[in-house]
Amino acid sequence: MKTLKVIGMVFFALLVAAGAFANEINAAQNAVSIDTVWMLIAAFLVFFMQAGFAMVEAGFTRAKNASNILMKNLMDFAMGSLAYWAVGFALMFGKDLWGFIGTSGFFLSGGDPFTAEGLWQLAFWMFQVVFAATAATIVSGAMAERTKFIAYLLYSAVISAVIYPVVGHWIWGGGWLGNLGMVDFAGSTVVHSVGGWAGLVGAIMLGPRMGKYVEAGGMRKVRAIPGHNLPIAALGVFILWFAWFGFNAGSTTSGTNPSIGTIAVTTNLSAAAGAFTSMIYSWIRFKKPDPSMSLNGALAGLVAITAGCAAVSPTSAVIIGLVSGVLVVLAVQFFDKVLYIDDPVGAVSVHGVCGAFGTLMVGLFAQAEYAESAGIGTINGLFYGGGWSLLGVQATGVGATFVWVSIACLGLFSLIRKTVGLRVDKDEELRGLDIEEHGVEAYNGFQIFTTQ
Amino acid sequence: MKTLKVIGMVFFALLVAAGAFANEINAAQNAVSIDTVWMLIAAFLVFFMQAGFAMVEAGFTRAKNASNILMKNLMDFAMGSLAYWAVGFALMFGKDLWGFIGTSGFFLSGGDPFTAEGLWQLAFWMFQVVFAATAATIVSGAMAERTKFIAYLLYSAVISAVIYPVVGHWIWGGGWLGNLGMVDFAGSTVVHSVGGWAGLVGAIMLGPRMGKYVEAGGMRKVRAIPGHNLPIAALGVFILWFAWFGFNAGSTTSGTNPSIGTIAVTTNLSAAAGAFTSMIYSWIRFKKPDPSMSLNGALAGLVAITAGCAAVSPTSAVIIGLVSGVLVVLAVQFFDKVLYIDDPVGAVSVHGVCGAFGTLMVGLFAQAEYAESAGIGTINGLFYGGGWSLLGVQATGVGATFVWVSIACLGLFSLIRKTVGLRVDKDEELRGLDIEEHGVEAYNGFQIFTTQ
Amino acid sequence: MKTLKVIGMVFFALLVAAGAFANEINAAQNAVSIDTVWMLIAAFLVFFMQAGFAMVEAGFTRAKNASNILMKNLMDFAMGSLAYWAVGFALMFGKDLWGFIGTSGFFLSGGDPFTAEGLWQLAFWMFQVVFAATAATIVSGAMAERTKFIAYLLYSAVISAVIYPVVGHWIWGGGWLGNLGMVDFAGSTVVHSVGGWAGLVGAIMLGPRMGKYVEAGGMRKVRAIPGHNLPIAALGVFILWFAWFGFNAGSTTSGTNPSIGTIAVTTNLSAAAGAFTSMIYSWIRFKKPDPSMSLNGALAGLVAITAGCAAVSPTSAVIIGLVSGVLVVLAVQFFDKVLYIDDPVGAVSVHGVCGAFGTLMVGLFAQAEYAESAGIGTINGLFYGGGWSLLGVQATGVGATFVWVSIACLGLFSLIRKTVGLRVDKDEELRGLDIEEHGVEAYNGFQIFTTQ
Repeated sequence: MKTLKVIGMVFFALLVAAGAFANEINAAQNAVSIDTVWMLIAAFLVFFMQAGFAMVEAGFTRAKNASNILMKNLMDFAMGSLAYWAVGFALMFGKDLWGFIGTSGFFLSGGDPFTAEGLWQLAFWMFQVVFAATAATIVSGAMAERTKFIAYLLYSAVISAVIYPVVGHWIWGGGWLGNLGMVDFAGSTVVHSVGGWAGLVGAIMLGPRMGKYVEAGGMRKVRAIPGHNLPIAALGVFILWFAWFGFNAGSTTSGTNPSIGTIAVTTNLSAAAGAFTSMIYSWIRFKKPDPSMSLNGALAGLVAITAGCAAVSPTSAVIIGLVSGVLVVLAVQFFDKVLYIDDPVGAVSVHGVCGAFGTLMVGLFAQAEYAESAGIGTINGLFYGGGWSLLGVQATGVGATFVWVSIACLGLFSLIRKTVGLRVDKDEELRGLDIEEHGVEAYNGFQIFTTQ
Repeated sequence: MKTLKVIGMVFFALLVAAGAFANEINAAQNAVSIDTVWMLIAAFLVFFMQAGFAMVEAGFTRAKNASNILMKNLMDFAMGSLAYWAVGFALMFGKDLWGFIGTSGFFLSGGDPFTAEGLWQLAFWMFQVVFAATAATIVSGAMAERTKFIAYLLYSAVISAVIYPVVGHWIWGGGWLGNLGMVDFAGSTVVHSVGGWAGLVGAIMLGPRMGKYVEAGGMRKVRAIPGHNLPIAALGVFILWFAWFGFNAGSTTSGTNPSIGTIAVTTNLSAAAGAFTSMIYSWIRFKKPDPSMSLNGALAGLVAITAGCAAVSPTSAVIIGLVSGVLVVLAVQFFDKVLYIDDPVGAVSVHGVCGAFGTLMVGLFAQAEYAESAGIGTINGLFYGGGWSLLGVQATGVGATFVWVSIACLGLFSLIRKTVGLRVDKDEELRGLDIEEHGVEAYNGFQIFTTQ
Repeated sequence: MKTLKVIGMVFFALLVAAGAFANEINAAQNAVSIDTVWMLIAAFLVFFMQAGFAMVEAGFTRAKNASNILMKNLMDFAMGSLAYWAVGFALMFGKDLWGFIGTSGFFLSGGDPFTAEGLWQLAFWMFQVVFAATAATIVSGAMAERTKFIAYLLYSAVISAVIYPVVGHWIWGGGWLGNLGMVDFAGSTVVHSVGGWAGLVGAIMLGPRMGKYVEAGGMRKVRAIPGHNLPIAALGVFILWFAWFGFNAGSTTSGTNPSIGTIAVTTNLSAAAGAFTSMIYSWIRFKKPDPSMSLNGALAGLVAITAGCAAVSPTSAVIIGLVSGVLVVLAVQFFDKVLYIDDPVGAVSVHGVCGAFGTLMVGLFAQAEYAESAGIGTINGLFYGGGWSLLGVQATGVGATFVWVSIACLGLFSLIRKTVGLRVDKDEELRGLDIEEHGVEAYNGFQIFTTQ
């Protein structure tokens, strides 16, 4: 009887324990599902950025080149997806070599759908590929209206396959900058600065569009070349803002991360503040509130908060946004009126300059309470008692990225220039890339001024 | 031995209890994550409404004012975000004062990322700010093509900061209308009627656009001023419909709410029915099925179901949609041809009239079984045995909102008129607000008729 | 004392068991919520396809017919929603009759919001209605620029109510093809081929647009009629690609399905590969990389992977995409230059041909490890040791669908032709359907060439 009772008790205990264990598993499995659902939906949103960039870049340039820039946006994602599948993902997240580069997982070779790890890796790849494509897409804006299509295809593939993944490995993939403690939560530097600096090198090497800077009597005169379709450009910015919620809040790669709401808030406030000060500052400077500047101001705020969205307070996000809205206008003026570098859509200022700025701001505004909530460690910026060290690391990352991207792109574009050529000929540029490169017009039936 | 056994049993019991408790926690935490993920994704969708409204308002007005209306849509969200962060959220959801207004939480001061409550509040703010911005955006449509940009910025900020939050507090924030039992699940009144009535007051105070109503031989002739870009207007309506799923189903602020699917169904059916009857009725009345009316019919169905989406059956949703599709055409005709109030995009009819209509319909069609499933209590409308009381409360809410918004906007617009001025001068209106207010053209290079 | 202890133990045991049971329930409920959230968000994305199709079809046709095609896209969803609510869903998923058709659940009559089953059914309807509407929408592209509006409304409603649900029942609703083991995970055949073949029959019965094929000296000359707005067409393709993640990965109808990430990956890779080879092949064939073909190539890759997205490896997805990108160009050329069938947007090639192709490819590339992970059984295609049987079943399904849709549409369109008429008169076609059918112009104020 007693033995029976003991056996009964043990049996019951095992039963309960098994039940508890099973529940634990269920809850854990549910958590994995929540994380996967969140990361995938975020990935879909980030994919949608391609539409945003396509509309922004087409809208801010001339009608005669619209089909060309749309094709570039389509193909950089198509080729970028294939390149990142074959090579890029492996270089970025593969087995680390000397803190510099990844070396395994080419062609998604590690993605075994029989294991939870393999399944997660496939979902994770989906999230990462849309980031890689974003970096590549940014470049097309800075080099718009004069780059050969074949040249574009080549460098776009190389950026997705190699140049971007290297920086990605350094900061996110187990490389030296991440090990130093650099914080670039969603990629102000990894994605945006890489795109921006690549565009800068490209814009310099291409030279300005015909008629952009006119020499007259020893003086260089700057001519504005307005875009052809502001409504689609504005639509593009709204799409980007929408998608950016996935970009930043999705970078937790986890829906159970308690900070996803906070990240959405900081992202939104910085964008709002950026749009606001860009409008105000353009109003003061040009006497009228400028739509293109205001739209770029929203993007500037988004780019700038991307590095620190999970580590700063909403109030800090407002400050970062307010500054970036002014900074982007200054940068656009500086590249155009001082350096005479022709960046048709302002991509270098928005993504390069504000990306670097935002990355540095983490070194000032990071607060441990926000960073801990998001699970990125106990970090404090200069303004919150963390001293100069984080700022130093951030600056190192910004500098190293600039150096790597500049040198790599210089080599890449030089090679392209010497082989297939980088720039279309004058006749083609005058008639428009749509007719010359693709044999089509973007707006059949519409009367469009030929001078445009 | 016996004591040992008892100790063992107690120990084991505690172990099991702890395990069960831990599981409970896990499951509860997962539920919070599911709710947060759902609410945030819904918030992102509602943010995307800004793109929808921008495209609808730009498409339904003239090319010469397109940049201006896009700027207004961008800036009302940018400034609205900042205003709602600083003031609006506190007035709407802060500590209640006399059932009239909230009084705490300015600058998100309560949002502590160290507590679950604080984290939730931040995510909740994200959801609420996009609603506040929607109310503000609606106004720009009714006042399009003749309002000064500076005037727009001022009233848009005040609507987001004060006028909208007051109604929001009354109905959603613990105020007197909510306490009376008013049901406005996702904001037919809170969001849409507020925007619609503010637009009505604005349109009256501004007066019609030049050339809209022509006096000839003692007769007033109504001239149609067609929009310049129907494709983007249609795109805008599709975006709004898409985003409305977040607006309505997201208003559970909970993904574990069992009614989220039902809400999506009622939302979709009402929109479909509204588009259908608007087309049919415009066909009968104007001899041809009218695209603008049909598009507005879809919006009418969406606005009308917003109050009751969680409390009515799919069949009732179809009925509400069918009626609202006719109602919106009648309202557009009434304001235009009878009252001579010039509302370029029909915003007053769509959001004001159908918002009020939809709010009242809850008093007729609410069914306890649907409402209970959604967790909004056991309510029945007149048609389902609930008697007249709910209808009475709904009517009170509709009336009170109309009175508050009318008086507040009358004061606000009067103040603006006396200070910075409300309307652009005639020359500016003729040339277009794009050139005069912003120094740009929306469609550079396109040949556009000057009479437009 | 002893009895008391036994009672205490039993009580405690029950308590713990209840707790464990409650947790089990919680975890299970959470899983249902995750599934519902995922399915609904996917449904919202698939709804957004309407915007994508509207932009693609409007952009690829002429400005004088833009309002008309937008109205068609709006109304097929509006009427389709009502038709699928009243009839279609019941025919597709109701109680099976002879493996041929469903017979219960008209007007969502089974959707009881008091039961978990009823709530799920409502959410499931939401997911299904957007699929039904997609099938109907595809047809409008193939029959664009010459179909009477009233004729369109009629056949669109019948497709959503009957023609599509029949195929849906056969394959997804418990019908004979599903029972044979046909695999069409997200609807290459159910949705896309149905739309494509209906469009094919329609395009043949309508005949080509005026001026499309010109007889000169006994020779038939094919004239290209380019679309009027490539930027919105490109936007449409980006929207479709974005929405397709919901279409394919959402077809698990479950966010806890471990394969959702894998499906997103195969979907994306096939689309990318399709766009890539379409560009390359059009470059070789027409000497220039063609934007319309490249855009259609992305869609071809998406359509082709839809059947097998959950059953094939990423590498197989790349192969399927690569082939479909070439196939779509060949098909467009074949219908246009060999058969002289005028399909303005290439809908038959994209949806009909690539839908059939993709369905067959499952018979070659299916791999048990992927299919099992996604919960669709242990299936292997010819290339993975499964022999010819699956391929045979897939071919049967492709053939049966073609036969059913062709015959049904032949009857339907004949009936419409004999009653209200199928095609507009010549005068109307020349002036444009916008003015003649709807009394509006899509682009007021723009100078547009009259020959277009």
